[in-house]
Amino acid sequence: MPKTLKLSEYSSILLENAVGELSRLPGIGRKTALRLALHLLREDASRTESLSRSLVQLKEKIMFCSKCHNISDTDICAICSNPRRDENMLCVVEDIRDVMAIERTSSFNGLYHVLGGVINPVEGISPSDLNISTLTHRITHEAIKEVMLALPATIEGDTTGYYIYRLINRENLKVSVIAKGVAIGDALEFADEVTLGRSIQNRIPFAGV
Amino acid sequence: MPKTLKLSEYSSILLENAVGELSRLPGIGRKTALRLALHLLREDASRTESLSRSLVQLKEKIMFCSKCHNISDTDICAICSNPRRDENMLCVVEDIRDVMAIERTSSFNGLYHVLGGVINPVEGISPSDLNISTLTHRITHEAIKEVMLALPATIEGDTTGYYIYRLINRENLKVSVIAKGVAIGDALEFADEVTLGRSIQNRIPFAGV
Repeated sequence: MPKTLKLSEYSSILLENAVGELSRLPGIGRKTALRLALHLLREDASRTESLSRSLVQLKEKIMFCSKCHNISDTDICAICSNPRRDENMLCVVEDIRDVMAIERTSSFNGLYHVLGGVINPVEGISPSDLNISTLTHRITHEAIKEVMLALPATIEGDTTGYYIYRLINRENLKVSVIAKGVAIGDALEFADEVTLGRSIQNRIPFAGV
Repeated sequence: MPKTLKLSEYSSILLENAVGELSRLPGIGRKTALRLALHLLREDASRTESLSRSLVQLKEKIMFCSKCHNISDTDICAICSNPRRDENMLCVVEDIRDVMAIERTSSFNGLYHVLGGVINPVEGISPSDLNISTLTHRITHEAIKEVMLALPATIEGDTTGYYIYRLINRENLKVSVIAKGVAIGDALEFADEVTLGRSIQNRIPFAGV
C-alpha cells in the first residue's frame, strides 16, 4: 500500500504519530493505540499532560537501589533502609515485579536482591549480565543467614538458581527455594502433570490447617 | 490496606504515579500499566520523550474538519478538500474510526459526515449532542444526491438512522443504509439468528460473483 494511502486512512499526521508511538509499547497493537489516542482526545488536555509528565519524570528521575537494585526514588530503597526488616533473610528475585508480588503476600519480612533477569543462553543473557557480583558481595559483607531463591519455575529460573547455589553455598548459610506445587484453590485434575508431580515430591508433614 | 503499605509495594512514588496515569487509560489495568512503565524504563529516554511529545502535540494541535467533523491537521480535512472525491455521495458515520474502517475498504469515494456518537437515552445522548444540525445544513447547501447511513447495527444506531431519515427525507435525495448480513467467509451455522434473518430479508437478485 503506498504511503499516501496510509496517511489518508488516518487523515491526520498528528494522530498517526501518536498511534505509531503508542503501538511501539509491548502488547499494544495499532487498533488499541488508536483507541487510546482517541480517548485522550476526548478527555481534558490536563490528563494528557499529566500522563506525559509522569512518564518523562519516571524516566528522568528514577533510581535503582544501590544495595538491592530494586526500583527506588532514593539511593537506598525504602525496603533496604527499613530497620524493621529482617536483615538476616535475603530473597533473590528475577525482577522488580517479583518484589511487588512478594510484598503483596505480606509473607516475607527480609531484604531483596533483584538480579535483573535470569541466565538465558538462547537470548545471550549470561551471569555477567545479572546483578550477581553484588549478590556475592552482600552475602560476604552483610548479616545474611538465609538466601531464599524465588526465581521463575522455568528451566532458566532453575539454571540461575543452581548457578547461584554453587556460587554462594558455604557453611553457616542456609539456601532455600520457594515451594512449587498446586496453586491454592486449584482442583488437582486441572493442574498440569509436572506441577502435580512436583507437589507430590515436595510433600511436607501434615500439620493441620 | 493503609496507604503506606501500598506505597512500599511500588517502592517508588514516580513509578506509582506513572502506573496510576497509565491505568486511567481505557482497557489498561494496573498490571498492564506496570508492564508498560517498566518497559519504558528499560528503553532509551528518547523513546519516552517522543511518546510524550506525540501525545501532547496530538492534544494541542489536533483539529476537527469544519465540514465533516473528521479528525484533521487542517481546517478542512484531506477527504473534504480532495477534488477527486464524489461530492454527490455523503456517508454518515458515528465515529472517526468508522471513517478509517470505510476508507480501508476502498469501496467508497464520496464524502463523510461524523456524528460524534449515536442517540442513546440511557447515557443521556440526545440529537442535540451530535453533529446533526451541520448535517442538515450540508444537505441543503451542498451538491449531495445520496446520503448513505453507515451506523452501528445496534438499537441506538438504528434509532439514530431513523431519526436522521425522518429529518432529511425529501424528494431528489436518496437515503440508503449499508447492508447487514452474514460476514464474508462465515459459515451460516455460526451466524446468529438475527443477522442470518436480516441476510434473508435483504436478499438481492443473484448476479454471479
